[in-house]
Amino acid sequence: MRLFSLSNPLLSSKYPLLASLRRSPLHVFRRNPSPMDGAEASLRTALTEKQTAVDAKADTVRDLKARGVAGAELDSAVEELKALKLEATEIGQRLQSAISSNGGGGDGAVSREAFRQAAVNTLERRLFYIPSFKIYRGVAGLYDYGPPGCAVKSNVLAFWRQHFVLEENMLEVDCPCVTPEVVLKASGHVDKFTDLMVKDEKTGTCYRADHLLKDFCKEKLEKDLSLTAEKAAELKHVLAILDDLSSEQLGAKLKEYGINAPDTKNPLSDPYPFNLMFQTSIGPSGLSPGYMRPETAQGIFVNFKDLYYYNGNKLPFAAAQIGQAFRNEISPRQGLLRVREFTLAEIEHFVDPDDKSHPKFKEVADLEFLMFPREEQMTGKPAKKICLGEAVSKGTVNNQTLGYFIGRVYLFLTQLGIDKERLRFRQHLPNEMAHYAADCWDAEIECSYGWIECVGIADRSAYDLRAHTEKSGVPLVAHEKFSEPREVEKLIIAPVKKELGLAFKGSQKMVVEALEAMSETEAMEMKGALESNGEVEFNVCTLGKAVKITKNMVSISKEKKKEHQRVFTPSVIEPSFGIGRIIYCLFEHSFYMRPSKGGDEQLNVFSFPPLVAPIKCTVFPLVQNQQYEEVAKSISKGLTAAGISHKIDITGTSIGKRYARTDELGVPLAITVDSTTSVTIRERDSKDQIRVSIDEVASVVKEVTDGQSTWADVQWRYPAHSTTASGESSHQNEI
Amino acid sequence: MRLFSLSNPLLSSKYPLLASLRRSPLHVFRRNPSPMDGAEASLRTALTEKQTAVDAKADTVRDLKARGVAGAELDSAVEELKALKLEATEIGQRLQSAISSNGGGGDGAVSREAFRQAAVNTLERRLFYIPSFKIYRGVAGLYDYGPPGCAVKSNVLAFWRQHFVLEENMLEVDCPCVTPEVVLKASGHVDKFTDLMVKDEKTGTCYRADHLLKDFCKEKLEKDLSLTAEKAAELKHVLAILDDLSSEQLGAKLKEYGINAPDTKNPLSDPYPFNLMFQTSIGPSGLSPGYMRPETAQGIFVNFKDLYYYNGNKLPFAAAQIGQAFRNEISPRQGLLRVREFTLAEIEHFVDPDDKSHPKFKEVADLEFLMFPREEQMTGKPAKKICLGEAVSKGTVNNQTLGYFIGRVYLFLTQLGIDKERLRFRQHLPNEMAHYAADCWDAEIECSYGWIECVGIADRSAYDLRAHTEKSGVPLVAHEKFSEPREVEKLIIAPVKKELGLAFKGSQKMVVEALEAMSETEAMEMKGALESNGEVEFNVCTLGKAVKITKNMVSISKEKKKEHQRVFTPSVIEPSFGIGRIIYCLFEHSFYMRPSKGGDEQLNVFSFPPLVAPIKCTVFPLVQNQQYEEVAKSISKGLTAAGISHKIDITGTSIGKRYARTDELGVPLAITVDSTTSVTIRERDSKDQIRVSIDEVASVVKEVTDGQSTWADVQWRYPAHSTTASGESSHQNEI
Repeated sequence: MRLFSLSNPLLSSKYPLLASLRRSPLHVFRRNPSPMDGAEASLRTALTEKQTAVDAKADTVRDLKARGVAGAELDSAVEELKALKLEATEIGQRLQSAISSNGGGGDGAVSREAFRQAAVNTLERRLFYIPSFKIYRGVAGLYDYGPPGCAVKSNVLAFWRQHFVLEENMLEVDCPCVTPEVVLKASGHVDKFTDLMVKDEKTGTCYRADHLLKDFCKEKLEKDLSLTAEKAAELKHVLAILDDLSSEQLGAKLKEYGINAPDTKNPLSDPYPFNLMFQTSIGPSGLSPGYMRPETAQGIFVNFKDLYYYNGNKLPFAAAQIGQAFRNEISPRQGLLRVREFTLAEIEHFVDPDDKSHPKFKEVADLEFLMFPREEQMTGKPAKKICLGEAVSKGTVNNQTLGYFIGRVYLFLTQLGIDKERLRFRQHLPNEMAHYAADCWDAEIECSYGWIECVGIADRSAYDLRAHTEKSGVPLVAHEKFSEPREVEKLIIAPVKKELGLAFKGSQKMVVEALEAMSETEAMEMKGALESNGEVEFNVCTLGKAVKITKNMVSISKEKKKEHQRVFTPSVIEPSFGIGRIIYCLFEHSFYMRPSKGGDEQLNVFSFPPLVAPIKCTVFPLVQNQQYEEVAKSISKGLTAAGISHKIDITGTSIGKRYARTDELGVPLAITVDSTTSVTIRERDSKDQIRVSIDEVASVVKEVTDGQSTWADVQWRYPAHSTTASGESSHQNEI
Repeated sequence: MRLFSLSNPLLSSKYPLLASLRRSPLHVFRRNPSPMDGAEASLRTALTEKQTAVDAKADTVRDLKARGVAGAELDSAVEELKALKLEATEIGQRLQSAISSNGGGGDGAVSREAFRQAAVNTLERRLFYIPSFKIYRGVAGLYDYGPPGCAVKSNVLAFWRQHFVLEENMLEVDCPCVTPEVVLKASGHVDKFTDLMVKDEKTGTCYRADHLLKDFCKEKLEKDLSLTAEKAAELKHVLAILDDLSSEQLGAKLKEYGINAPDTKNPLSDPYPFNLMFQTSIGPSGLSPGYMRPETAQGIFVNFKDLYYYNGNKLPFAAAQIGQAFRNEISPRQGLLRVREFTLAEIEHFVDPDDKSHPKFKEVADLEFLMFPREEQMTGKPAKKICLGEAVSKGTVNNQTLGYFIGRVYLFLTQLGIDKERLRFRQHLPNEMAHYAADCWDAEIECSYGWIECVGIADRSAYDLRAHTEKSGVPLVAHEKFSEPREVEKLIIAPVKKELGLAFKGSQKMVVEALEAMSETEAMEMKGALESNGEVEFNVCTLGKAVKITKNMVSISKEKKKEHQRVFTPSVIEPSFGIGRIIYCLFEHSFYMRPSKGGDEQLNVFSFPPLVAPIKCTVFPLVQNQQYEEVAKSISKGLTAAGISHKIDITGTSIGKRYARTDELGVPLAITVDSTTSVTIRERDSKDQIRVSIDEVASVVKEVTDGQSTWADVQWRYPAHSTTASGESSHQNEI
């Protein structure tokens, strides 16, 4: 599907890792120090020792001066001090560079910042995205997609629908964003979807508590070279366990380090949880609280029963939803990566927990790409290329269905234009996963902010359906009809209510319930005891004491029963896509700069594949004249008929400037009308041109932008438009 | 674009009008009674008179009996009474039928109800849409689109994007739903986006005040035959002026008619305004109120400056947005038609107020369709077919751009499958339009609920841009650069502050402002008065009194100035599409029932054009066998490669049942595999079948579903699959 060779030098340079996101893998990685960490630690120790030596020598020099000693003794001491200082400086420089290459800052950070600034400037200037409500000074964490960004987004979503919903026959649904409280109470969001917040005690400004602690530790580690190796290790440990800290522990650390409000230096409140959902009220009474959904998945779970029926009461099947989700972030950061409203695309694949094989797994089994299993993270090893089939057969990935989706996500992202060298699948560590999850992998994409979680692929077992079954009272279960009835042994506990009533009067009900609630083991033990002793002590926890049960009070037996079906709660495997994050990473992976022809200017290019390019092609009459304009218009008609989005630019601007303008929008092809019989087609990244007759131009553009042919294919079929020795186009005004 | 002939008998029957929507045209129409209304009124009078005669004769009979009179005199009085009663009954029946055909209820209403029930049952059973959060007993006014509904919606939106955004080169944007208060304060929504509400004084249940009054009037008119013609006229007048009633007037009417809470009969509170926006809070401080946007348009207006720049600072251009909008309706009604969250697709076409011509108007000028201009509504005439070009040239439609969009909306809706006989463009009456609007037309579609406003097409002049300019302080204006400077006469008012200060001291500032605020006429009058009298009385409203202005206090003159450009606020023409309403009407227009082959059952069909059909085609092996299944799978691969959404059904169900199941989903074509070399293709509405070789089947399906060929075209090219004399398919198990 990739049609254009990437000539972006930045794409191949790997940024050092940078821990900057909640639940970032980095802190865990750092638990087992890497060789880098070892080098850094010994440099810190060496620097501390050298600094002590410098201080001691400085004391000596001061002492000598104070005592009036001069001449050779003083000179030599001063020389020694200078030498020690030089050594300290040199160790300091080596330490700084060790910190930088550990991702802490330094030159790498500077070039990352510069790259990001260039990309973001272009993105905002060309209205790919802009802060929302700008004329009212904006709202943090809310962004608009302008025309080219909106087109990219709509292309990404159309491809998602094609790649997942249509090719896999998924059941797509579209549920409202406004959600009543009961649904999000059942899912756990009302009680648990919180971040810890602290307030400036004087101004009331709010901060995320973990952000303040993280920023403090990172700044110290990056900038304070006098930090001892021990202190540095401590701060790194804090970064590592940041997400596991309780409210109290976080508060204690903030106090210990004397962290105040960053803007005012005022003291801070203790941390307390803030729910991240936007709350509202449904209907006019004010009595029905509701929330803007924080994810789209719940809309699918509550519809499980209908969807299962729609699918002919058969498993497995997948439902999908694309839609807005809302999170009232305490302090939004990092542009499109952490926002208050965003588009999610989620899949819930329902499957029999006893059979998670996938019939199409073999189609992705041979894929090989960067994976970062638990094992590698815990032992400080890097991510590595693994064949997906092996990962599943060795049990690294829990099951075929999970593996199938990992493979499909890999294909989806790389076909969009995500660089496969900067994409990895990272497995969650045990402490990151919910207790119910069977396995979980994040597709992480590396950009200037570090490795960003863009897709989560989790086997959530039966948790969500069970939670809604319990809260709603509607069983969200599947049935497996047996082809012939199966014999099953069933435990029967039959309390004799009359006898129990006589013995326990008012407590009878509690005793009956306790008897019926016994496990099979407990019941069979009681049966044995009653048969041998005629009575047994039985602890009834609802009464808070033990009672004496006699043989006549309960009958316990096992019966063989024929069963016609198995009733069970399906497991759900959930690939969840943060569309805005994917798009932002795609912007960064596609962006590069190249010198203008004169070499006096840097020109911006987005190397989008045609699949996602906002416009597929432009039509430029070389010079302003009526004949060329008419040709351009007739070509435009042909392109419209072929369903190719395009734009005519008939301004008198130089052709080079027009190319540069559309390179900046990532338009893959440009048609230049320079005669009335044939035209040139120019490819964005190579700047190569071919000459094609007017009758054929729409079909050539179509086959390249539809992905039926590559640019190389058509280049081979059509004559090159004469180029100069330097490889530049003969349309001499290429700038 | 319509490929299939419609054989739906219900499609051609026009329902009588039914006034049931806020701002419905009907109440206005009723201001000038139609002939129907005239007949109804005289029947009401006749019935009242006849009832009086019946009562009088009954008195006579009672009197005779009381006086002991018997025999011929009593017999004849009784006979006369019977005859009078019979006449009264007969007039009552005629009145009932007159009411019904006026849209008030009766048989028409019954068949409409039955039709709607059948359609809605099918829609909900097949998960086109369902109430949201059903397992938690739902939330009024929130609906989910299930798999086929979601596919229809995504097809409608894709076509909208194709038909408007791409073909017209619009600038599409995508803004958040969460909106800060300041934006909606500027737009007027915070202060004015309200409905009047009353509360049950005991239970607190809320009702829309106008709904209660409307329901009362309608029920009286429909069911109370004893109503005098005068009383009936009064109630009709109330219905007509419902939307113009103030809170006080509405409260007084509710009291006058003794209207209580419908469920409890408890007394009601006075009406008070309830804001229809969902309110929330942005960020953690609780200090930034926000709302879920009630429309998408504001996101475009606040971005005008950037979009104008993006368009090369040139007018006209259009921006477009598809997205969710939210209205916290007091009492949602009528399924998908009045909901609390819905998808809007809006266009804001910015144009020079001095030139609203449109270069492509000629492409739609010849269209002829049902229009319902102001004139026709005021004089009680029906909607009529008008040629769009004439409507614009005669001034019925205000300008070419507005006319162009009306034409494009007509093409959009009819290509989707909206019946053009049940689509009309109704012009707003002066009292319906905002004071700033230049002209406004609604595309109304008739369904079982009456004529429903589905698209509003308004020339909103400069209102919105001016409101945001004022509130934000950022000028949202356009510039017209003159090719050469133009001489303009400008009014110069120069207050002499020193003199004014001496004369008015502390009030000086107010006087200066009042002088500067004079219109050209006022200023020139003052100039004249000062020149002739040396002084003049001048009313300063901020001071609440007139002051004496003398010649030395102000200089007024006209100066000629050279101007290089004209700065102005563009007008905006706004077509706004309620996607859910359009889809619901499309469902009704596409739905019909036909008897099964045996005639013992009614089968449901949706006659969607391929453009909107949720799935384009199905593949059925005629009987379960491996050979046919393999053929089916290879055809499926070909269809996938051709990008055609389809479904295989390899269940052993009879072919007739499988056809019926997919007719109910509106699938246009079914491929039945009954040999290993060729297959049949069956068209849904005609049930005709052709025989096509396996190699050609994907391309035949593609050309029909893409709209390149009609079914008739391919029927002509391929042999018919042998049919029986009755015209039924030879696949004998068609049910």
